[in-house]
Amino acid sequence: MAAVTQPGPGRPRLGPRRRAGGTPRAEILDAAAELFTTKGYASTSTRAIADAVGIRQASLYHYFAAKDDILDVLLDLTVTAPLTVAAQLAAAAAPAAVRLYALAWYDVRQLAASRWNLGALYLLPELRSERFAQFRARRAELRGHYEQLATEVAAGDSTAAPAAGAPELAFRLVETVIDIRSDAGIAPAALEHTIPETVLRMLGWSGSATEIRTAASALLDALPVDEIQLAQMPEHQQ
Amino acid sequence: MAAVTQPGPGRPRLGPRRRAGGTPRAEILDAAAELFTTKGYASTSTRAIADAVGIRQASLYHYFAAKDDILDVLLDLTVTAPLTVAAQLAAAAAPAAVRLYALAWYDVRQLAASRWNLGALYLLPELRSERFAQFRARRAELRGHYEQLATEVAAGDSTAAPAAGAPELAFRLVETVIDIRSDAGIAPAALEHTIPETVLRMLGWSGSATEIRTAASALLDALPVDEIQLAQMPEHQQ
Repeated sequence: MAAVTQPGPGRPRLGPRRRAGGTPRAEILDAAAELFTTKGYASTSTRAIADAVGIRQASLYHYFAAKDDILDVLLDLTVTAPLTVAAQLAAAAAPAAVRLYALAWYDVRQLAASRWNLGALYLLPELRSERFAQFRARRAELRGHYEQLATEVAAGDSTAAPAAGAPELAFRLVETVIDIRSDAGIAPAALEHTIPETVLRMLGWSGSATEIRTAASALLDALPVDEIQLAQMPEHQQ
Repeated sequence: MAAVTQPGPGRPRLGPRRRAGGTPRAEILDAAAELFTTKGYASTSTRAIADAVGIRQASLYHYFAAKDDILDVLLDLTVTAPLTVAAQLAAAAAPAAVRLYALAWYDVRQLAASRWNLGALYLLPELRSERFAQFRARRAELRGHYEQLATEVAAGDSTAAPAAGAPELAFRLVETVIDIRSDAGIAPAALEHTIPETVLRMLGWSGSATEIRTAASALLDALPVDEIQLAQMPEHQQ
């Protein structure tokens, strides 16, 4: 850290930006995401984040008043895009199984492909505080979307009746991509289909995997994907 | 913390023990488990643990050389009993579905009933260090037991073929009890059957839930349960 150039406020840095994102704000978010997921949230100071970006701590405070504000934005990034997709899917005319597959597919992909495994922060004791009540409510809203679709699938024609509480596990199975990624260092690409298909199987659904994948792909293509993808990228967040 | 009596080494404390466990070692483990899961691992010092037990920091070092040794023992407690059960089930003559149900049932119950939600520590960045290689290997061994049984179930007669990678998700679905407990503050009792049954459903198994529960219960009763249950209790750990 000692070798990092520390330019004065407002003065352009000499070196090229090393961080993802085209703005100081995006660079701060990227550096914080890396440090929170690799060193730990409590072990990371705003000073360490500023150092990793190559700015002064005072400059960082221009963008974020406190460390928990940075965490809040990062956590929110993990649910913003799937919530948008879930709301659009709720209004779509496709069968519940296709909509649930599409939501799980989209969500697994974004959890697996994000630059840092931010979902690993969900279990932080800090998240139980009032400060993160809004984030918890938004994640609960996403969980509710899953549960509603899963309940519809479970009520449909199935060869084996699913367990009574199975619809609540759909969201949980999707989030296991976070644990797999944490243990293995990477989430295998196959998960983007293994998990959505398994979510349907555990609800008693017995249709064709190939057909539902095609239908879910067409459904996702019909959504305003550009907006959704932009919503995922830190450099487009305000 | 200032009000806690701090007796000298070897001197009996005046007040009654407030902690779970009949020995100082068990009390240290219990206090550490509480602090690690409610305040965070990095935020908890060995001094804070000693204070919570009501002993001197020097006395704590008589039992544990460092904070990571305490974490290592606590993590190990989450896999010791299920590993014992898994090894016994691997040698049992029952069908794979019954053995997998029994393992998942036992494991969900112990993860749900443990005094502190220690599984929430699995995602700590600290666990990726060499220090915890042995724990990671033991947890991987447990995951292997699940995968082997799940592969057998998936290969059996099923009405809908499961997804290719579904057997790897059996272990992951069991561990979602940790996330549910973290979010809700408690793991609903119904999960001890919802999760094992859903594990089988996602593998294409279509038998009777009532029958498999009865068979798994008889199988678990036939195992040397006393030894297993003792293995779970910190006061019996060495």
